[in-house]
Amino acid sequence: MYFGIAVFPQRHVQDLANSYRKRYDPHYSLIAPHITLIEKFSLPEEEMFALIPEFEEIAKNTDAFTIHINKVSHFFPNSPTIYLAIENHEPLIDLHNKLRQILDWHQPAYDFIPHLTIGQKMLEDELLDVYGSLRMHRFNLTSLVDRFHLLYQLENGSWVNYQSFLLNK
Amino acid sequence: MYFGIAVFPQRHVQDLANSYRKRYDPHYSLIAPHITLIEKFSLPEEEMFALIPEFEEIAKNTDAFTIHINKVSHFFPNSPTIYLAIENHEPLIDLHNKLRQILDWHQPAYDFIPHLTIGQKMLEDELLDVYGSLRMHRFNLTSLVDRFHLLYQLENGSWVNYQSFLLNK
Repeated sequence: MYFGIAVFPQRHVQDLANSYRKRYDPHYSLIAPHITLIEKFSLPEEEMFALIPEFEEIAKNTDAFTIHINKVSHFFPNSPTIYLAIENHEPLIDLHNKLRQILDWHQPAYDFIPHLTIGQKMLEDELLDVYGSLRMHRFNLTSLVDRFHLLYQLENGSWVNYQSFLLNK
Repeated sequence: MYFGIAVFPQRHVQDLANSYRKRYDPHYSLIAPHITLIEKFSLPEEEMFALIPEFEEIAKNTDAFTIHINKVSHFFPNSPTIYLAIENHEPLIDLHNKLRQILDWHQPAYDFIPHLTIGQKMLEDELLDVYGSLRMHRFNLTSLVDRFHLLYQLENGSWVNYQSFLLNK
């Protein structure tokens, strides 16, 4: 079964992200706007569920925090992706690292840069166009992060939430 | 903000439901296959979140259970909806009733009949056609129900999972 771990920012941030994703993200209907903590990985169901107490432990020992989003950025030419950049990386990197220690066989394709995708699999021209029109825009968004979610993927590619893990408040 | 409470059956049941929903359910891309426990309702965020300890209490005091699905049924002519019928209603009705006691101002539009929608807003001819071809089919599905989920709705109509509540195992 395919699993992933993500943070969903508060609704106002998701609604804004969706206004772009609708046009520029082919995953728009497969998952809500999110910040990936652990990329998609494959694990037998029972093995995954056996790790849940460890996720609970991590959540309990991590303080809730607030993220700030001011601008867009992109991964081009490595990947034709545009995203809302998270200004304060540290708490998300910390959470990512703690989860990686449990899923230590999981080799991600890229270094972990916390981001909220608003466009992906874009043509170069389109990406440069959209980035050009958004790069000077100040977004000034904040979102509380007080939980993360373990997700699994259905046959049609969409993601379903299995369990929420509440950070310490 | 709009909220709802639902149970998501195990993946094999969701995949089967989606094979029909893809064609017959306009909500296919807005939410994964689910059994609604509490229909969409509107409540200020803070009021909703203040009720969470009560949901936790209900979950803790309700035993996990298994549902059985053998056949399709429909709500026509009340509503042009086809669904996978849950053979053993009692544990879902029990959970619904407990949640209703907390959300006691919430007046649902219909009596609560636990069901897993596979088609809705259908034309009469199409509904009768699909029902006609599925009504003799025995599905013989089971799914563990060991949690329910509180969801909220985004501007685009899609539903995001806010929190999972684990039943007693």
